[in-house]
Formats: sequence, C-alpha cells, structure tokens
Amino acid sequence: MPGKLYILPNLLDEELDPAPFLPISVNAAVAKLDGLIAESEKMGRRYLRKFISHDEMAKCPLRVLNEHTSDINELIIPMEKGECWGLISDAGLACIADPGADLVWLAHQKKISVETFVGPSSLIMALQLSGLSGQQFSFHGYLPRDAADLEKKIKELERQPGAKIWIEAPYRSAKMLDQLLKTLQPSTKLCVAVNLTMATQRVVSQTVAHWKGKSFPLGKEPAVFLIQ
Amino acid sequence: MPGKLYILPNLLDEELDPAPFLPISVNAAVAKLDGLIAESEKMGRRYLRKFISHDEMAKCPLRVLNEHTSDINELIIPMEKGECWGLISDAGLACIADPGADLVWLAHQKKISVETFVGPSSLIMALQLSGLSGQQFSFHGYLPRDAADLEKKIKELERQPGAKIWIEAPYRSAKMLDQLLKTLQPSTKLCVAVNLTMATQRVVSQTVAHWKGKSFPLGKEPAVFLIQ
Repeated sequence: MPGKLYILPNLLDEELDPAPFLPISVNAAVAKLDGLIAESEKMGRRYLRKFISHDEMAKCPLRVLNEHTSDINELIIPMEKGECWGLISDAGLACIADPGADLVWLAHQKKISVETFVGPSSLIMALQLSGLSGQQFSFHGYLPRDAADLEKKIKELERQPGAKIWIEAPYRSAKMLDQLLKTLQPSTKLCVAVNLTMATQRVVSQTVAHWKGKSFPLGKEPAVFLIQ
Repeated sequence: MPGKLYILPNLLDEELDPAPFLPISVNAAVAKLDGLIAESEKMGRRYLRKFISHDEMAKCPLRVLNEHTSDINELIIPMEKGECWGLISDAGLACIADPGADLVWLAHQKKISVETFVGPSSLIMALQLSGLSGQQFSFHGYLPRDAADLEKKIKELERQPGAKIWIEAPYRSAKMLDQLLKTLQPSTKLCVAVNLTMATQRVVSQTVAHWKGKSFPLGKEPAVFLIQ
C-alpha cells in the first residue's frame, strides 16, 4: 500500500515559536513521520527539534531536496513502500516560491497520497496586508538582476492587470525599492512588506507619488514587493 | 491613537473544528476584538461562536462588508477612534479571492495598523497539492460563463507561463471540468482539488491525456482548477 507525503509548513524565521503560526495538527503530523525531506540536513534537524525529542529525532532519517538534487525518484521510494514522509522548505510553505513541486507531481504519478497543512506564506500575508487585488494576482519569483532587464520587466508588470508580487534576496531589497521608485508611474500602488511575522515587521502600501515623500530605511531584510 | 484591523482567517467549511486549521493566536485575537466585519451578520456570529462565549458575543458589534457595501469609510471610523476590529470572509482568507482589499487599502491611508494571521487558503493549498509551479503562478478568480468566451479564455491561459489557478461556483464544477478536457492540449497538466480540508477532499493532478481515461465524479462541490 503506497504511503504518504505530508507538505509541512515551516516558520518564516527559524527563531520564532511555532504556536502563534502553526496549528497543532502540524505537531501531530511531525510525530508520525518516518522521515523528512528538507532543503538541507541542518535545517531539517532544526525543524524536527521544535516538535519532537532528541531520541525521536535520531530515528527520523533526513533527505535533501534543493536546486542541486538531480534524482527525485530516489526520494519517493520509501513512500512507495508505504512510509509517511514530510517535506519542508527553509521558510514558509514548501512548493510556494520554494522547492517541492516536482516531488509532489511525482507522488501523484506514483499514487502516493499528498496532504498539506496550514502555515505562513509571506506572499499571501503580504497580499492580504497590501490592500491590493486578491481577486486577480500573479507571483513572479525573482525579477532579472541586470539593471536594463529589470527596468523593462517592472514596466511590463506595471501594465498587466491585478496585483503583481515578487521577492528579492534580502541584500538587494533597498536597491529594488530605489529602482521601483525611479521606474513606476506616480499613480501605481506599491506595497513593501518587510520581515513578515517578526517583531520588526513593517508594511507600507501607498501610491508611488506618496512613497516618494516618505523615508523608508530598508536594510538587508527579507521583503515582498507588490504593485498594482 | 489609531486602532487596529485584524485580518482573521476563517475555515474552508463552517462545520469544521478550528484546531487543526488555525493557530491559537487566532483565539487570542478574537478575544481582543471591539467588533467584527463579516460578509453577513449570520456568518459573523457563527464565526464568533467558535471562539468566545454568548455573553462576550453580545458585546461584539458586527458590520457587513460584501459586494453590496457602498461606503467602506463608515466601517473604518471605530478604528480611527482607537478600536481593534476584525475582518473575515465567509471561508478561508479575507482579501484573497474574497472581499476586504479596499478596506485594508483605506486602513493604510488612515494610518491604522493592519495585522494578519495564518489560516487556510484553498488556492494555496491547491497549488501545493498540485505539483504545478509555485515559482511562477497566477490567480484569475472566476472565468467567463459564456461558452465561447470560456473556451477562448482557457486557451489564452494555457499559453501563459507558470501555473494558472481559478475557482468556479460549486454547481458549475462538473461543467468546467468537461470544458477543460475538451479544450486543453493532451500534454497540459491539469489539477482539480475538491472539498479541500474536508473529509471528502480529493485532488487529482495529471496530464490531460491521463485525465481522459479517468472517471472523476464531480458533484456540486467547491473545486479549485489549475493548469500548466
């Protein structure tokens, strides 16, 4: 009988306490795992430590799934034999702006049942907090790094309907904001959501015209960008 | 001092127990509310009943925000005076495929702090469970009802990059699936996620070629559709 793949939520910052952000069903699911697939062994262990004892952890094998993983077929074998494995990414929800989708697709082809659990997604929290359209929206991952390509992409997104959402490496957050204020039209709505779920969380959502009169110190912090 | 707007998660089905789907921070937030904004008074009361006593409920005023609400300025007044109000939609996350975004945008303009809480989103759960791309995706609300317009829209979405997600009124779910199987290319990936978080949940994710050999009885059930 085929096993199960549990897509488990992680926190948006590993220092956080899970209780305000994860429902108790996650604890029960982690306690049932025969193994865990994570972006790295270190992050996998840190995750398990939040839910189970050191002894239980020693019995829970870890496998790695990240951009260097060449063969996901091997990861699915224990589930084909009836085991129940978990899948997490380093932060937030696996398969959403993070690895995991290929493994889930393979699980469907192998008739392995896939379940997911409620947890924090920085994209979705940012969209809710932005006041931009949740009736029509699109997520674009990372935008191009080359300055000319980036400017072109920002203008292209600005013309599309609905809310457009993307992320950036924390050390480039300030540069992205500068570029947006230079490129966007004054009437375009711009939201920047920084350090979501952390004590330092801040969200500003204004037209570009209003943004220009505003000081918004932005360090090397994880940010979600939204325009409409 | 301006008050607060809490965007609170609802369940995907009102019969469910909140514990497996909502973190305990939601209980604490509901207990602090000075009032609740919901799509209808009835649904607002049913929500409060899950978290607070009858006596506490009697002290918590309810206001309605739905497609018939003409003046959202009035809804924000108590928060301008320092009160803390909650916002929910009938199911899942307010502001995501549901009303609320305009109120959040207004709150930003009035310097009212907005917070959100982790909860279930059928779109995001469906995307995770689909195995389609969570690196690039778009949500399109409801597609056109007219048969010719719908066919055109499906073909247009099929050509766009990434995962495309939409919803349909439950009584039209089976019709939508029929139309998809008629219109899409055999190699296109199609996922249908039905009754998410309920005991009757089922998710099938296959290429259209594989779907065609499959029987998938679909009643008047809430479904999320995804293609890539």
